[in-house]
Amino acid sequence: MEKLKLMSLYADFRKDLSFIEKELERSVDSSSPVIRQASLLLLRAGGKRIRPIFVILSSKFGEYSMENVAKVAVSLELIHMASLVHDDVIDNSDFRRGYETVKARWNNRIAMYTGDYIFSRALVSIGEIEMPAVHQLLAETMLEICKGEIIQFEYQQKTDQSFRDYLRRIKRKTALLLSSSCELGALVSNTDSEVVGKLKRFGYFAGMAFQIVDDILDITSTDEKLGKPAGSDLLNGHLTLPTLYIKDDPEFQPYLYRAFDGSLTEDDRGRMLAYIRQSGAIEKSQQVSDMYLKKAIAEVESLPDNDAKKALLQIADFLGKRKF
Amino acid sequence: MEKLKLMSLYADFRKDLSFIEKELERSVDSSSPVIRQASLLLLRAGGKRIRPIFVILSSKFGEYSMENVAKVAVSLELIHMASLVHDDVIDNSDFRRGYETVKARWNNRIAMYTGDYIFSRALVSIGEIEMPAVHQLLAETMLEICKGEIIQFEYQQKTDQSFRDYLRRIKRKTALLLSSSCELGALVSNTDSEVVGKLKRFGYFAGMAFQIVDDILDITSTDEKLGKPAGSDLLNGHLTLPTLYIKDDPEFQPYLYRAFDGSLTEDDRGRMLAYIRQSGAIEKSQQVSDMYLKKAIAEVESLPDNDAKKALLQIADFLGKRKF
Repeated sequence: MEKLKLMSLYADFRKDLSFIEKELERSVDSSSPVIRQASLLLLRAGGKRIRPIFVILSSKFGEYSMENVAKVAVSLELIHMASLVHDDVIDNSDFRRGYETVKARWNNRIAMYTGDYIFSRALVSIGEIEMPAVHQLLAETMLEICKGEIIQFEYQQKTDQSFRDYLRRIKRKTALLLSSSCELGALVSNTDSEVVGKLKRFGYFAGMAFQIVDDILDITSTDEKLGKPAGSDLLNGHLTLPTLYIKDDPEFQPYLYRAFDGSLTEDDRGRMLAYIRQSGAIEKSQQVSDMYLKKAIAEVESLPDNDAKKALLQIADFLGKRKF
Repeated sequence: MEKLKLMSLYADFRKDLSFIEKELERSVDSSSPVIRQASLLLLRAGGKRIRPIFVILSSKFGEYSMENVAKVAVSLELIHMASLVHDDVIDNSDFRRGYETVKARWNNRIAMYTGDYIFSRALVSIGEIEMPAVHQLLAETMLEICKGEIIQFEYQQKTDQSFRDYLRRIKRKTALLLSSSCELGALVSNTDSEVVGKLKRFGYFAGMAFQIVDDILDITSTDEKLGKPAGSDLLNGHLTLPTLYIKDDPEFQPYLYRAFDGSLTEDDRGRMLAYIRQSGAIEKSQQVSDMYLKKAIAEVESLPDNDAKKALLQIADFLGKRKF
């Protein structure tokens, strides 16, 4: 239902998106059956294609070239996919969005190498663009994301952490790639540098809001809708914004420690989620997300009026309120 | 002893190499203690720095710029290091019983994260070079290497394979990155395109010879010198050139199957290695390596005379005869 709504927001750019979709499929095609099957599995598991749509929309403020835009969009979506396969290795997840993960179907090794392969594919795709600034930005973005992966590990199972630690983590985990999607889309279209800056900040703020909503849904949604157990973040040892608000609550702490050490029963998982939901932590988290969303919208509102601007505003609004 | 000999071949380029060594250390420095420790461990473990030396030597045939050469050399050595860490990642499901799980997992995670981080560092380093051809070549090289990693998995434990399959595998595993090291070193120095072609082919042929010698040493050397059990390739399910020559030999086959299914005893490992050594397979493999080495030397011999040419010839000769 909600996914359909998102698709309807993309309607004006369906042609661009379906071109990118075909390029994505083409780019992971390979004579190796394992590579092909693993990549297609990932591609089909789909997702919201937020990075491609951000690239497309941002590029509409400059000299739009479908060809260049597709190269950047394909590259960024592939990098996102590669990081997902590697995350599956880390978290030992057997399912993502209801689909079997590469790691579950084959093994950790294949998941890791598929990630490496897709990563390289991303470089080949963007390699065709002859703009040094594009390559430098992409490399720096990837470096920060990888740093984030390791720092996330350093914070795993650590209850002594601040809101700032959390915000820095989700910046690297999500906001940076969305920010760079906007910036790169604008850059390859030779967009005016002031506009590039606004789009870049829009992507960053929207990304922060998006990830906070994601972390809220991990508590408030159902196993079925999530395609994985609700509360997975805690089960994997990750404190997120809602849980940071109540981590020192003595009634919550027994759940927290048992989620971290793996001794939480199914019944207690339900009780833990119910406890967080009634604690007020969800509302507080939603307010932080709303604050980022407002900042995102403010950046876009000062841009010249066009269809892309309208779509960016609608998508930002949707991402902040989505239920999946 | 032999390592010292190699270092003496590098003597004329010690200044360039030590500059690159410092840049390598600087590039993996990080505020994250895990990143820093893991990367430095890898860096200190050393290796022969063949990629950096190939970059340096190849660049001496054009307009040599230490700064550009260092960026390329650092990038290629980092990519090599990243692929080594990823190679070390063990499939949890296979090795769970052999290792304490938490420890095995800690290693896997850190290994994968560190590999990703170093990969990105490599991109940042080469990203500073404003030559599109350089980025395209690097991306294509990485793609082929990753493909090779997965294809190696597809061939694991498979006895029905040809010499061509093997040669294609070692091309991706080793020869390509050495070939690209030469090509990139020459490219960033604006070397004449005919010379670029010769250096590229030199790197490829030398890389093939190098890997075949590596595969021979896995049979003929000692556990102590190798730092792992002799015969590891077979124990890991990989047929290499020497074993391809005798894989259909009825006296060898019982060893082969037991090496593959993990039921080979320590005594039988010794007998298996002795059997391969006396079978003539080593000599035949050495001939193939020598053939590649001759081709490598032929490419370089037609290049203009200089110190770099002399060093390339000596190193190629050394790589083909080395005992470590």
